[in-house]
Amino acid sequence: MEYGKVTGKVLDELIAICGTDFVFTSIEVVEDYSHDYTEDLRYYPEVVVKPRTASEISAIMKLCNRERIPATPRGAGTGLSGGALPVFGGILISMERFNKILEIDERNLQATVEPGVINQVFQDAVIEKGLFYPPDPASRGSCFLGGNLAECAGGPKAVKYGVTKDYVLNTEVVLPSGDIIWTGANVLKNSTGYNLTQLLIGSEGTLGIITKIVFRLIPYPTHNLLLLVPFTSAEKACEAVAAVFRAGITPSAMEFMERDAIDYVRKFVDVNLAVADDIKAHLIIEVDGNDMDALFKDCERITEVMNEFGATDVLFAESAQQKAELWKMRRATGEAVKSHSIYKEEDTVVPRAELPALLKGVKDIGAKYGFRSVCYGHAGDGNLHVNIIKEEMSDEDWNTQVPKGIREIFELCVKLGGTISGEHGIGLVQKDYMDVPFSKVQLDLQKGIKTLFDPNHILNPGKMFN
Amino acid sequence: MEYGKVTGKVLDELIAICGTDFVFTSIEVVEDYSHDYTEDLRYYPEVVVKPRTASEISAIMKLCNRERIPATPRGAGTGLSGGALPVFGGILISMERFNKILEIDERNLQATVEPGVINQVFQDAVIEKGLFYPPDPASRGSCFLGGNLAECAGGPKAVKYGVTKDYVLNTEVVLPSGDIIWTGANVLKNSTGYNLTQLLIGSEGTLGIITKIVFRLIPYPTHNLLLLVPFTSAEKACEAVAAVFRAGITPSAMEFMERDAIDYVRKFVDVNLAVADDIKAHLIIEVDGNDMDALFKDCERITEVMNEFGATDVLFAESAQQKAELWKMRRATGEAVKSHSIYKEEDTVVPRAELPALLKGVKDIGAKYGFRSVCYGHAGDGNLHVNIIKEEMSDEDWNTQVPKGIREIFELCVKLGGTISGEHGIGLVQKDYMDVPFSKVQLDLQKGIKTLFDPNHILNPGKMFN
Repeated sequence: MEYGKVTGKVLDELIAICGTDFVFTSIEVVEDYSHDYTEDLRYYPEVVVKPRTASEISAIMKLCNRERIPATPRGAGTGLSGGALPVFGGILISMERFNKILEIDERNLQATVEPGVINQVFQDAVIEKGLFYPPDPASRGSCFLGGNLAECAGGPKAVKYGVTKDYVLNTEVVLPSGDIIWTGANVLKNSTGYNLTQLLIGSEGTLGIITKIVFRLIPYPTHNLLLLVPFTSAEKACEAVAAVFRAGITPSAMEFMERDAIDYVRKFVDVNLAVADDIKAHLIIEVDGNDMDALFKDCERITEVMNEFGATDVLFAESAQQKAELWKMRRATGEAVKSHSIYKEEDTVVPRAELPALLKGVKDIGAKYGFRSVCYGHAGDGNLHVNIIKEEMSDEDWNTQVPKGIREIFELCVKLGGTISGEHGIGLVQKDYMDVPFSKVQLDLQKGIKTLFDPNHILNPGKMFN
Repeated sequence: MEYGKVTGKVLDELIAICGTDFVFTSIEVVEDYSHDYTEDLRYYPEVVVKPRTASEISAIMKLCNRERIPATPRGAGTGLSGGALPVFGGILISMERFNKILEIDERNLQATVEPGVINQVFQDAVIEKGLFYPPDPASRGSCFLGGNLAECAGGPKAVKYGVTKDYVLNTEVVLPSGDIIWTGANVLKNSTGYNLTQLLIGSEGTLGIITKIVFRLIPYPTHNLLLLVPFTSAEKACEAVAAVFRAGITPSAMEFMERDAIDYVRKFVDVNLAVADDIKAHLIIEVDGNDMDALFKDCERITEVMNEFGATDVLFAESAQQKAELWKMRRATGEAVKSHSIYKEEDTVVPRAELPALLKGVKDIGAKYGFRSVCYGHAGDGNLHVNIIKEEMSDEDWNTQVPKGIREIFELCVKLGGTISGEHGIGLVQKDYMDVPFSKVQLDLQKGIKTLFDPNHILNPGKMFN
């Protein structure tokens, strides 16, 4: 694809659309928007714009189509697959000014928000009204809801409450053509036409730019209990996960952390946690609901299951502070690993009970290709984040051996019934592996959808597909 | 679209594909497959085939493409929007031989089934293993799971547990081209490519023919309580619905029945229920979970809410038999109304708290156009089934006034934030109204998806769009 350039004339048009205060070409700004949280990658946009309305974005899209200029939408830039990187330059559309919670509809347990609202700001706003928006990626303190939709973000609560897609009723979207549409209706069930809402969610900003979101909310559960369970075998910890669900309990979180992950994060944030030398992994298990007696019963049953799989201690977080500390530890893990070494993060996902096989496979494949990995993640969903650590590895091995190992890990995921991304998306960094889960027919169908929405391939090009 | 005919040569090819025992042209069989549960409509296929494998369907699709013959897939024929009617003749593909539960994976709480399995057969099979597949349309005793996917069926449990789409992880699909693909992976979260699984669900057999389904299951809740609440005002009953959720309770069913619906069904099935003369509506409310004490607490809170909205009695179903009787009554309502008169069923859906406004609007619009309606449905979802009764109405009024009234009801739905089908689909009988919820841009995008999947428009043509 040959793309047009952002000329002076194009800049003038962008200024006419967005206003002079919201079009940026200075090196400082362009630098700021050249990277996200994905590894150490940098791609420079030619111009950064910060529109405020769907109409402005519509005008930008029409301009991009006319001049064949690529446009890359960006939320908070916390993505881990490079979805917000402007790999062909062009126009970077920052959604940061779409930062209003437009309505919290307490009558209908719904909310209408703009995509630039920070996840936690929204969560806190609805909690104040006794309502709950469960999806909470580790970056919830900074990530935007629009980005959450783009990647179909998950988080620890997904195991009980589902992922982003399960809370979106409707979206307002600017299509690549510049047309502005709603994708659905503000209802809990909808059999009216194709499900464009679900097609847009997880489309990584390649099919349209979301400008409004209607979420469904649920009553906020009034109580929760948090358990920390050390294991002397990481695989036993993984085996215990599926057994909890088979025992009839659906925890509101079921997280797995390998020993190394715990050690990294303890060096990175101040956590008051003693870990015996022989402990190889922890599970963090939360149950929530409105009835404390019922939760205690759940925890008793969970404790029995843990004991069956060799756990000798099941530690209760006694206070709100202890709970907060455990979650801080879990949420900081990614950053802790990142601060330790150059790394690559894979977002593997398999059926829950295949987690032990996946973990073992990841370690075996690492041994074969000479890399070490730190694994942690949402065990209840079978979603294991595999952080491959560079440390002392040579650049050559890093660039040649690691991709072979990643491919083998992904092949293992697919063999186990899983796939290559559970919640981070494909974006830039995984697109070379799309032939692992998908045949040519499957890929051509997806590319056909892309071309239907965006015939000139001006919206977030270079993502998802080769 | 000019379609080819089912010639003797085509029949020979169909026999070569499916075997001579599974290709039918006799008038008895063709008659059987000329109608579904939708009103009193009849469209005759030229031939009925009953393939057994995805490969056979693939071969049929290739034949249809070559000869431009329309193919209409059919489940159990319990649909209410005419989705299984072969409106252009051609080949009727009955999925009844795809009737195997292939695996119930207790380790992963998943099941792989063929689309011709009856909903209740599947529900019962997983309950035996302590597992739960919640979607349960009124026709669950006869409808096929494949049809449930095609229309994204709901049912009474949807209010707590979601609809069909919320339980489908993956599907095997024969595309109109004859290619066979899987649409996703067997995982609880998936950010790998566009969500083809969700695009197929609710596509009413127009994008592909589903040949395998992977469902997620959840632990079966061990207890439930069922309440029947009579109201002297139908609108007050509707108002009470949203208040229950605002009180922090999510019932596992929250059904609304107008007085007329109760009276019809009491004449149709034997139900032991005394209803005082001044009662205008009932709510049926179920809560479920693993802890009976918690459920009793929920029921106390629900009773308080009901009293606030003027209900003087809240009746507990004391025994399993009483519960079964109440559900039999609710599930037989559609058939009871159908047996009473020619009717049209509209599947209106609005945000939950707009239900009183919708109910009032339906009655006002009926008065304006001279028709009576019986309303009931899934109040917790804002999903009101509006049965328009012909009774003594003249054919002319039925054919001219009623469509105007339906259009106005749908316009009201959209104005209230809702849409025109919550769980029945558009199919044949609602497609004339698709311009009510959708603009030309929205419709063209959907039609573009159809054409991308099915360039020759051979698969279930004449549905969803004009």
